[in-house]
Amino acid sequence: MAFMDKDFLLNTEIAKKLYHETAEKCPIIDYHCHISPKEIYEDLHYDSITQVWLGGDHYKWRLMRCAGVPEDFITGSADPHDKFLKWAEVLGRAIGNPLYHWSHLELRKFFDYQGLLNADTAEEVWELCNKKLKQPEFGVRGLIKRSNVEVICTTDDPIDTLEWHEKIAADASFDTLVLPAWRPDKAMNIEKSGWRDYLVQLEQASGMHINSFNDLKNALRNRMDYFAEHKCSLSDHALNYVMYAPAYDDEIENIFSARLGGQIPDENAQAKFKTAFMTFAAREYKKRGWVMQIHYGCQRDNNGPMFDKLGPDTGYDCVDNYAPSSQTAKFLGSLESLGDLPKTILYSLNTNDNPAIDTICGCFQASLGDEAKGVSKIQHGSAWWFNDHLDGMTEQLKSLGNLGYLAGFIGMLTDSRSFLSYPRHEYFRRIVCRLFGEFVEQGLYPDDLKTLSQIVQDISYNNAKKYFNFK
Amino acid sequence: MAFMDKDFLLNTEIAKKLYHETAEKCPIIDYHCHISPKEIYEDLHYDSITQVWLGGDHYKWRLMRCAGVPEDFITGSADPHDKFLKWAEVLGRAIGNPLYHWSHLELRKFFDYQGLLNADTAEEVWELCNKKLKQPEFGVRGLIKRSNVEVICTTDDPIDTLEWHEKIAADASFDTLVLPAWRPDKAMNIEKSGWRDYLVQLEQASGMHINSFNDLKNALRNRMDYFAEHKCSLSDHALNYVMYAPAYDDEIENIFSARLGGQIPDENAQAKFKTAFMTFAAREYKKRGWVMQIHYGCQRDNNGPMFDKLGPDTGYDCVDNYAPSSQTAKFLGSLESLGDLPKTILYSLNTNDNPAIDTICGCFQASLGDEAKGVSKIQHGSAWWFNDHLDGMTEQLKSLGNLGYLAGFIGMLTDSRSFLSYPRHEYFRRIVCRLFGEFVEQGLYPDDLKTLSQIVQDISYNNAKKYFNFK
Amino acid sequence: MAFMDKDFLLNTEIAKKLYHETAEKCPIIDYHCHISPKEIYEDLHYDSITQVWLGGDHYKWRLMRCAGVPEDFITGSADPHDKFLKWAEVLGRAIGNPLYHWSHLELRKFFDYQGLLNADTAEEVWELCNKKLKQPEFGVRGLIKRSNVEVICTTDDPIDTLEWHEKIAADASFDTLVLPAWRPDKAMNIEKSGWRDYLVQLEQASGMHINSFNDLKNALRNRMDYFAEHKCSLSDHALNYVMYAPAYDDEIENIFSARLGGQIPDENAQAKFKTAFMTFAAREYKKRGWVMQIHYGCQRDNNGPMFDKLGPDTGYDCVDNYAPSSQTAKFLGSLESLGDLPKTILYSLNTNDNPAIDTICGCFQASLGDEAKGVSKIQHGSAWWFNDHLDGMTEQLKSLGNLGYLAGFIGMLTDSRSFLSYPRHEYFRRIVCRLFGEFVEQGLYPDDLKTLSQIVQDISYNNAKKYFNFK
Repeated sequence: MAFMDKDFLLNTEIAKKLYHETAEKCPIIDYHCHISPKEIYEDLHYDSITQVWLGGDHYKWRLMRCAGVPEDFITGSADPHDKFLKWAEVLGRAIGNPLYHWSHLELRKFFDYQGLLNADTAEEVWELCNKKLKQPEFGVRGLIKRSNVEVICTTDDPIDTLEWHEKIAADASFDTLVLPAWRPDKAMNIEKSGWRDYLVQLEQASGMHINSFNDLKNALRNRMDYFAEHKCSLSDHALNYVMYAPAYDDEIENIFSARLGGQIPDENAQAKFKTAFMTFAAREYKKRGWVMQIHYGCQRDNNGPMFDKLGPDTGYDCVDNYAPSSQTAKFLGSLESLGDLPKTILYSLNTNDNPAIDTICGCFQASLGDEAKGVSKIQHGSAWWFNDHLDGMTEQLKSLGNLGYLAGFIGMLTDSRSFLSYPRHEYFRRIVCRLFGEFVEQGLYPDDLKTLSQIVQDISYNNAKKYFNFK
Repeated sequence: MAFMDKDFLLNTEIAKKLYHETAEKCPIIDYHCHISPKEIYEDLHYDSITQVWLGGDHYKWRLMRCAGVPEDFITGSADPHDKFLKWAEVLGRAIGNPLYHWSHLELRKFFDYQGLLNADTAEEVWELCNKKLKQPEFGVRGLIKRSNVEVICTTDDPIDTLEWHEKIAADASFDTLVLPAWRPDKAMNIEKSGWRDYLVQLEQASGMHINSFNDLKNALRNRMDYFAEHKCSLSDHALNYVMYAPAYDDEIENIFSARLGGQIPDENAQAKFKTAFMTFAAREYKKRGWVMQIHYGCQRDNNGPMFDKLGPDTGYDCVDNYAPSSQTAKFLGSLESLGDLPKTILYSLNTNDNPAIDTICGCFQASLGDEAKGVSKIQHGSAWWFNDHLDGMTEQLKSLGNLGYLAGFIGMLTDSRSFLSYPRHEYFRRIVCRLFGEFVEQGLYPDDLKTLSQIVQDISYNNAKKYFNFK
Repeated sequence: MAFMDKDFLLNTEIAKKLYHETAEKCPIIDYHCHISPKEIYEDLHYDSITQVWLGGDHYKWRLMRCAGVPEDFITGSADPHDKFLKWAEVLGRAIGNPLYHWSHLELRKFFDYQGLLNADTAEEVWELCNKKLKQPEFGVRGLIKRSNVEVICTTDDPIDTLEWHEKIAADASFDTLVLPAWRPDKAMNIEKSGWRDYLVQLEQASGMHINSFNDLKNALRNRMDYFAEHKCSLSDHALNYVMYAPAYDDEIENIFSARLGGQIPDENAQAKFKTAFMTFAAREYKKRGWVMQIHYGCQRDNNGPMFDKLGPDTGYDCVDNYAPSSQTAKFLGSLESLGDLPKTILYSLNTNDNPAIDTICGCFQASLGDEAKGVSKIQHGSAWWFNDHLDGMTEQLKSLGNLGYLAGFIGMLTDSRSFLSYPRHEYFRRIVCRLFGEFVEQGLYPDDLKTLSQIVQDISYNNAKKYFNFK
């Protein structure tokens, strides 16, 4: 097959048909990402391709570090042009890395560049991209529209004013739905040094005093109401692992008040507090019809000196392989026992967790009613972060197919910090079509284009639309 | 390749030859399953395809739940016809799921139906199957004979009277060997609420008093003798993980008597008790020449409300990823040190355990003598339950090939509750032939049909026959 | 494809080109193995193919045991000829096992035998090999030269006199560089029964008294200086897992002196001692510019009776699946915080650790300067031991490609005890070329022979040369 032409990844006739006639045409529902609503409202334009690509993308930073590029050319003070040249040189040799595909998809999609990016072509691409970026349609709104994005869910702290979401909603000239999503990690991470300061901010945002776990819950409920008014219907949690360490309310209040007094709880007490926190949160989501996303299997900020220099989310995180599936199942089971289990999406950074996740999901499925017929209530989230590549996505799809109901999957999200990342949906959809084409070619599923097209469309678009039911 | 025709999965010429000329012709030795000897003796006939397929098959129930089907159509009171229609609709879209293959294999094998089952064909298949099921040869004996089954080992509790096995043995009109297998989990699971009641039943069955662990061992020995008289030569154990927590006899007796007094042992004490139990059991098996099967890596009954409604084995189990290989190796090593290690088959529900299992097996191999020349004493069991599909079986075979001696593998078992499940042997054998064909086509193994055929026959039939040496 | 001809594993045109025009021509840098420098110096010749192949190769022993061969024909007193026949019979049926490929590669490479080895050909191969082994060029020096080996790093204990390395260095007739590598496991394994005796030997070798951990460190520094004088620049450590259990110096000294007094530390104290030991060692390596290799994920000597009979490294080891990635990351992070992290290579015996390792490596990369431009400082070691086969190596390469910078990989090592093992480099290189060819054929990387050839050469040779910078 030719390199990354229009049939990239589509290695069978049926895959080509499925992609070009169905998948490609579906709008994007990007239900989880980290882009800035302010930048959308202000329709940010970029100075250079270095700003877009290397401004905040820890995937690329990481690859450059692996290739031995000095930090000065990554996050340092080197000239943007020189940074781009280093990047191009590294990328040109990044065989087997998803950034090779992502970057070329972006070059093709947004910059109409069909060539390769490497040391030899770096100058040419630099010129081309920067010239294009000066055009009015290369603001973030233009990029979003060109990508056919119907809904974007950002990731927001409970204390957020959501002012930019309000402004976007009020702006009739932009019709992509931009909704907040609720991410209360700072309130949960009782062991972190900034936790008490955060509570003060939360007191201000909610107008409520927080002297107990019960107070905290009330303040969060208050903010959930506020988020709900802004059409939030989705939450997100980052956990090392999904724990289940049940405790009596008294014990949780004691942990809370000891922490207010300055005493960092030990790991055991942390697990109890977080279990109580997650239980509370899940129940609220269930009441409100929100979806609960849980991302786990990650240990963050492993490089102390670089954390001191650059802060979090700068490329120094790794897979944490401690995630006892028994506790995950017990946590969901404890919610189910009281009828409190909301729609849930589980993502682990550790691909070894695939079979555990899929079999756990299967223990808690239930009908979502006619409005979401055929969509699974408990979802195994699409291959996440380090696994968001051909192998990782294929494995997640196969595992879900083998152990669950793949046709009921809500599909892809970008999880990205960049407005150029929408081709990851394209990447995902091509991989789905590729896999289905291989199934047919190998005689594992019939050559029934009608059903296959329907499933592709469901996974690309319909299922997410029904599942989240955004207003 | 065409969809599921006679060459299903056989994607090379050599695979076709190996399957059609050798594998297909081998009788089935189904050395582990959960079917009812009573139903065999009575030659049960079915009312409808819903009864056969959806009567007790938690695989199918699980898939329907994942697809959002209301429970009423799964285990509830809906009309059998309507249940079947829901099932057909779900199955028709179950791309990537082994049930798609199993179900169509069963339709082809038993009902001579070459079409697809989906929403459009559901009525037609319903009529066809129910009509066939009314025919005399569609009793369970007919299904067994048509499947060319030479031996069946059921799964039986030590208190079982084995009366149905006796009756079958005495019935000269049915020549498939139906043998009991020993599964003493209830005696081991000291933490379960019904444990003491079970001991009472065991006292009755053995005619012995049980006031100590020593008594328990004697009662079990008594029942083993009884099982041996009924030609049992195979045991089975379900464990969360294969633990090794050695303790002195006194400590075990204390745990036992405390439990008799109503005190549930903590996890540590449970592990000690179970280690002592398994050590005892293994020694007895070694003395008697029995095979020890251990199934682990599963956490059961995760959904409380559904457990209360439906009980165990109804589709609410998941992978338990806690299974320290060091303990598994130490447990087997402790047996080996005293010459007490029986023939052993290890199965984990967690595919990540494949390399650990294969390397552990390799530490304890020994010659089985001329009667089982070339067969491995310690076996990595065929991909189990959730992994009993193309990917899972292929991975197990490859792992065993890479780390052990694949030609010495005893092969497939159904582990099923249904008399229609024998095509899982066909599925397995096709996958073996497929893999071997790919090896040859890729130049990884020579195109030596004679040797390949011999190995295929060994894995399909000869090895199991030699290994178990059923009388 | 034909079986194991000159294009073995090279299933695309691009793969053939990459291998035959580039990879095949690169010299071998075998930076980690277990061969004897004495045997090199003395240019050992072999009596028979049984001595070469079955004299000390626990891979082959293990396979024979899995196939049920009586121990007498493996490590016992049977006639070498009969042992070989048993081996040939087992190998002939070892479908899916890397030994099938390794053995045939060795037959082709060293003995110019293009046929199959199995029960039918065993006598013929026996004659052929033994005849060749009598020729002068079949001494170990001849085998090394024929394999185009530029550098060999042996594995040596700190107390080693390195006399054979000195003699080889002084022998102008042999120009392969044979360097020592530092493996201080015996000094670290404080729980082992021989630990105190080992300290006495270390006192003698260093001429220093060892009454404290501080003394031990000084003695080891002394020996490191000695090794450095002999051009050592590489260390190796075997750990069950890479732990991080920090403790104050006092506590370590207490553990040390208690152990001198005969008290075996518990697991917790062992972890603390080993953490302190590894931290010390890593700092010394960093100062000296040495590379730190860590091999983990293995539980050794699981079969007591066979250990008593045959000792360690005889085929009774298994994967240990306890290796918390959080501790591994913390250990490296603690070194990085003080600027003490040397060049590091991580190998786990558990393939499930691949993603954890690759993401950990990515957290600690840094530029190695112009002398090793483009080479990663922290390396995910090539698939090790049980995983050193087509599937395992492909997975390691893919994981590294997806999560790191594959073009900066230092590539293969034999880790072998045999002078016939150099074709494992050939095996590895063929697999690299195969993978790259598949990438191109699937349109995942451009058909850019120049860049591909450069990367193949870098992984086969250049990167290791730059990374180790052997003198």
